[in-house]
Amino acid sequence: MKAVQGEESRTMRAARLHGIRDLRLENLPRPTPGSGEVLLKVASVGICGSDVHYYLEGRIGDQVVTAPIIMGHEFSAWVADSGTGVEGLDVGQLVAIEPAISCGECEPCRHGHPNLCPDVRFCGTPPVDGVFAEYTVMPAENCFPLPQGFSLAESAMLEPLGVAIHAVDLAHLRPGYTVAVLGAGPIGLLIAAVAKAAGASEIYVTEPLTYRRQFALDYVADAALNPDEDENGMDVVAEIVRLTGGRGVDVAFEAAGAPETPQQAAALARPGGKVIVAGIPADDTMTMNASTVRRKGLTIKMVRRMKHAYPRAIRMVQAGMVDVKPLATHTFPLERIAETFEMVVAYDDGVLRAIIQVADEA
Amino acid sequence: MKAVQGEESRTMRAARLHGIRDLRLENLPRPTPGSGEVLLKVASVGICGSDVHYYLEGRIGDQVVTAPIIMGHEFSAWVADSGTGVEGLDVGQLVAIEPAISCGECEPCRHGHPNLCPDVRFCGTPPVDGVFAEYTVMPAENCFPLPQGFSLAESAMLEPLGVAIHAVDLAHLRPGYTVAVLGAGPIGLLIAAVAKAAGASEIYVTEPLTYRRQFALDYVADAALNPDEDENGMDVVAEIVRLTGGRGVDVAFEAAGAPETPQQAAALARPGGKVIVAGIPADDTMTMNASTVRRKGLTIKMVRRMKHAYPRAIRMVQAGMVDVKPLATHTFPLERIAETFEMVVAYDDGVLRAIIQVADEA
Amino acid sequence: MKAVQGEESRTMRAARLHGIRDLRLENLPRPTPGSGEVLLKVASVGICGSDVHYYLEGRIGDQVVTAPIIMGHEFSAWVADSGTGVEGLDVGQLVAIEPAISCGECEPCRHGHPNLCPDVRFCGTPPVDGVFAEYTVMPAENCFPLPQGFSLAESAMLEPLGVAIHAVDLAHLRPGYTVAVLGAGPIGLLIAAVAKAAGASEIYVTEPLTYRRQFALDYVADAALNPDEDENGMDVVAEIVRLTGGRGVDVAFEAAGAPETPQQAAALARPGGKVIVAGIPADDTMTMNASTVRRKGLTIKMVRRMKHAYPRAIRMVQAGMVDVKPLATHTFPLERIAETFEMVVAYDDGVLRAIIQVADEA
Amino acid sequence: MKAVQGEESRTMRAARLHGIRDLRLENLPRPTPGSGEVLLKVASVGICGSDVHYYLEGRIGDQVVTAPIIMGHEFSAWVADSGTGVEGLDVGQLVAIEPAISCGECEPCRHGHPNLCPDVRFCGTPPVDGVFAEYTVMPAENCFPLPQGFSLAESAMLEPLGVAIHAVDLAHLRPGYTVAVLGAGPIGLLIAAVAKAAGASEIYVTEPLTYRRQFALDYVADAALNPDEDENGMDVVAEIVRLTGGRGVDVAFEAAGAPETPQQAAALARPGGKVIVAGIPADDTMTMNASTVRRKGLTIKMVRRMKHAYPRAIRMVQAGMVDVKPLATHTFPLERIAETFEMVVAYDDGVLRAIIQVADEA
Repeated sequence: MKAVQGEESRTMRAARLHGIRDLRLENLPRPTPGSGEVLLKVASVGICGSDVHYYLEGRIGDQVVTAPIIMGHEFSAWVADSGTGVEGLDVGQLVAIEPAISCGECEPCRHGHPNLCPDVRFCGTPPVDGVFAEYTVMPAENCFPLPQGFSLAESAMLEPLGVAIHAVDLAHLRPGYTVAVLGAGPIGLLIAAVAKAAGASEIYVTEPLTYRRQFALDYVADAALNPDEDENGMDVVAEIVRLTGGRGVDVAFEAAGAPETPQQAAALARPGGKVIVAGIPADDTMTMNASTVRRKGLTIKMVRRMKHAYPRAIRMVQAGMVDVKPLATHTFPLERIAETFEMVVAYDDGVLRAIIQVADEA
Repeated sequence: MKAVQGEESRTMRAARLHGIRDLRLENLPRPTPGSGEVLLKVASVGICGSDVHYYLEGRIGDQVVTAPIIMGHEFSAWVADSGTGVEGLDVGQLVAIEPAISCGECEPCRHGHPNLCPDVRFCGTPPVDGVFAEYTVMPAENCFPLPQGFSLAESAMLEPLGVAIHAVDLAHLRPGYTVAVLGAGPIGLLIAAVAKAAGASEIYVTEPLTYRRQFALDYVADAALNPDEDENGMDVVAEIVRLTGGRGVDVAFEAAGAPETPQQAAALARPGGKVIVAGIPADDTMTMNASTVRRKGLTIKMVRRMKHAYPRAIRMVQAGMVDVKPLATHTFPLERIAETFEMVVAYDDGVLRAIIQVADEA
Repeated sequence: MKAVQGEESRTMRAARLHGIRDLRLENLPRPTPGSGEVLLKVASVGICGSDVHYYLEGRIGDQVVTAPIIMGHEFSAWVADSGTGVEGLDVGQLVAIEPAISCGECEPCRHGHPNLCPDVRFCGTPPVDGVFAEYTVMPAENCFPLPQGFSLAESAMLEPLGVAIHAVDLAHLRPGYTVAVLGAGPIGLLIAAVAKAAGASEIYVTEPLTYRRQFALDYVADAALNPDEDENGMDVVAEIVRLTGGRGVDVAFEAAGAPETPQQAAALARPGGKVIVAGIPADDTMTMNASTVRRKGLTIKMVRRMKHAYPRAIRMVQAGMVDVKPLATHTFPLERIAETFEMVVAYDDGVLRAIIQVADEA
Repeated sequence: MKAVQGEESRTMRAARLHGIRDLRLENLPRPTPGSGEVLLKVASVGICGSDVHYYLEGRIGDQVVTAPIIMGHEFSAWVADSGTGVEGLDVGQLVAIEPAISCGECEPCRHGHPNLCPDVRFCGTPPVDGVFAEYTVMPAENCFPLPQGFSLAESAMLEPLGVAIHAVDLAHLRPGYTVAVLGAGPIGLLIAAVAKAAGASEIYVTEPLTYRRQFALDYVADAALNPDEDENGMDVVAEIVRLTGGRGVDVAFEAAGAPETPQQAAALARPGGKVIVAGIPADDTMTMNASTVRRKGLTIKMVRRMKHAYPRAIRMVQAGMVDVKPLATHTFPLERIAETFEMVVAYDDGVLRAIIQVADEA
């Protein structure tokens, strides 16, 4: 591929959200890379739960869609052009992209926690445009070249895999630890897979959707239980505690974002255990029973995106430690993005991660 | 002193709780030490907030007073007699006493966390009698001999000091860290004092009672603010964040047990900071804003009593690192225990820790 | 099986070391279990490197064989009888045994580190007899019942597996970390296997013996290099650093006990990395280059046996996370123990762990 | 002060090392700040042990002085001018300066460990000129404005204080911990002072020079012992262990750089304790007894300069937590730098840190 040029380089097709459930395909100006940046030709983009929040509700907490926005941040792309001062990236190279552009100057950035940067600009989060589009521009340092043999579906799964790696990092898992994961959506499933790769000897999953419980069992779970079978899900909690011989699990990962799952996670953890919270609840509240968490002296940690996870995510996929392909259940072209969102919203056809494949080649 | 003997050794005076606000002085059988145990002649006993919960409400969560019980667990005593197999404790020796009798066999005990023992027997927690009494029996290994020069008031403060040490241990404080403490009761004040001894460079306290704010300022606090001046206490939070230059504190200790203080602590912590929860809320619920804790990637840790803290507590008092004496604001004999409880309940006369001095000498 | 009784219960066959390379089979009194203890009928016992030290040199550091001693501590056994107060262990049950009898009273024990107990009594370490014998007595709490399906060879490998788990625990491995292991003896190989189970994405091994390098490659290693090809092994170090793209490994495990391997491990570690030292050097000295360890700000941790590892070791074998069977390369009866030691000393016949199978059934 | 200008702005006085013990005052071109940089008018500069290494030996390990170099890196200065893009620093402002210019791009930098940056440029380390000179240029982000009331002597001590803070950070000190510090030079004394501020309840120092032992006692030490009184210093070690009741210290800091002090530190640490190595040994070797470190399961950590320590160092001095003034025992003008180095080399006149005061005002 040679660098884009001429008339056709001035515009691109993109899908913008104009209002709730109002996604429109448009011709927009193609961005140009500045110093230290690259122009990326987008390959594939996963539809994340946060995209669905904006699509359905127009907001996540106090982050509100007030103008048309291109969503999308779980993506891979080919390098199409470079600004000045970019080294080590060749035109035509397939890269995975860290979608957070952190400031690099604040205390969290300098201390090694760019995921906590208060001035972060994040692809597809208002007011920053994302990548359901033919082209985008990113800093070169956000781009991670992929080895030969990565499929486009795999490449779009590296971002959620990075979040799962960060969640497991927070847990300080030890080999032979037991684990519970509440919620078998893509993040919960990837957390379960990374936990298994990190030495978990038993993995218990709770999930209300039948097809996701079945997927979890086929994928990595030792048991998958339905929390909707009782009023507050606590019978399922009791059953998992029973499966651990009454001890509770070493680490409970909350990846459902339901009002009751943080407390279920607390009830599942052993004395001295950890609760890792990755879910984003609709009511923006985290509530637990004080006696439960105090008497067991629990540690509760919050998952905020990821940090420094891409090199390890790439290595783990390459080494066959985590198989991300089966989670990419559906692939559609950019033209069909609206119906794909509706399919995701409806939990239709056994969907886990639906991928918008914007282009087939560099 | 010689070992007790004869007729008078068979009974003792004790205060038992017969119902809400119904404390009665009675003659009860004096206990006898078994193998590995010592008979202790009680010196002084502090009235803890948990004692007040039983006194006022008859319960803490699902721990309910169903029969008359001797409360009290923050105490010092003289060794009065020993069962078989006890070494290193002499009759007449003043000791501080770890009030938790953990099983020593379970996983938390063997892994070094006796404070998380599910089979713990704890002085003055139903159904185990405590020490508002002339005598008690404890395992010898729970008794820590005190060096010369410890006052009785100091000796009764070692138990809450141990809890404060455990809370600060959980925070992994570094020298030059900034700290907030929510609640200036005895535990909050001791946490502030230990945090200062552990290298906190600034300590911000919130507390609704005027006399306690003043005490905090005189004691160790750089600022003490009143959270009741606004509806949800968040203006006070904003003021402390402003005092930290907009950054937030490295560690926020919750020691109030109010419904809103966990979220205030979360709002006070810097990105990547820690929230240490020591308070026991009346509604047995811990609620925080999910966005607040997630975006800052906070770690929340629960304080469950203490572990292995006595030797360090004794050394810290002896080395003058923490001055516990001013917190023991009042001392009364056992006969006046009922009125002392009422004084504590009323926050009367500038009370912080009221001490029942059961005996004046060995 | 019923409990042993009568004349035949009074003696047992055992192999005692009477001097360097002087192992004698003898009839010795059979021990009887005291309170809280069980009589164990020994099943299989691995010959550990420390046994070989006593066999060849009569000492390890200041631990000297001054009287005839039964060696052996890596073992499994059937419960044959119980003293008073033993619960949960049935006669005939196959158990794995933690060979360290820690005091339970000292600070390290109470703080959860029985492996650091200064008063520990350890099977087969002077002056405590070990288990190259038909029977032994151990505290019930040292015995871990094995699930159905454990082979005798596997059961004797749980002790070195526990050491490897402890070594990996010390490393705080994260999924996708790169690892080097110096030395492909049984401990080095088990560390490599546990590291892989704990999420290591690449494992580089150094080992001078050809058959052990080949075993490592077949077992879990991505590369196995010969450090004897150059004078101080540093070319091999440079080659592994090259394989990591110049970065060095996240964790370097020293499991060779050679004079130069600690420095090689330091040279292999990335800036901020960890060196975990498991090897026992003959000259009892650990030497590293000061600039190497200082400029990279390394953390060096020493492996002292293991703690609390048995339940996890059993779970990991049962879950198929680590395959210990191939390391048990040879099995001989107690009568052939002398020639087996000579075979191990000579690194004969591709030996890794040689097992003395004392009995075939309960 | 107004920005420097005209003829006199083109040169400056500076002291350059031309060979061993050959320091010459010269007129050199004054540097000019580039983008993001500031021109600094140097106030005071401490003479560090590493400066003395270059002065006496012309090298530290493989860092060799091959051309005339300006040494010096422990310094304060006034902002004299700014390049483009500098905000928040006013001309005339007194600042403390982090002397390490790390790359900001490598893995250690991005992960929050700029002290481990392999591409770091460090003031006064070959081939980078330092600050025994009237002016220097530094990145604005390396400059930390000092509050009113900082003396020039204090301001030059912030760099070694930062190293001490980093050393104590590595120790994860808890309140009531016991500490040993081997070596009572400025770094050892500052480590002792920071350890005390961080909650150490007892501090034991070893030091061969009588005046430094006396200083340590007057400053923060509970005991100061002379390791030269016996052949290998191990009697002094035994005495300190005796002072801890036979237990050993929680943390032993090595700050002497002698061949035998790492092993002394290992012998002083309790089981499970930590050894923090800050000293730079002349023979570039770190040797410990393998049994000592293994049987106690020690953790050994290496101090590499510091990271992110300036804001805390400033707060700690300002809050009176550490008194750095008494360590600045001598102050001389730049003209007398040669004789000052000789005084430091001779340990003359009770010298601890000698300060070169290059200018008296902005």
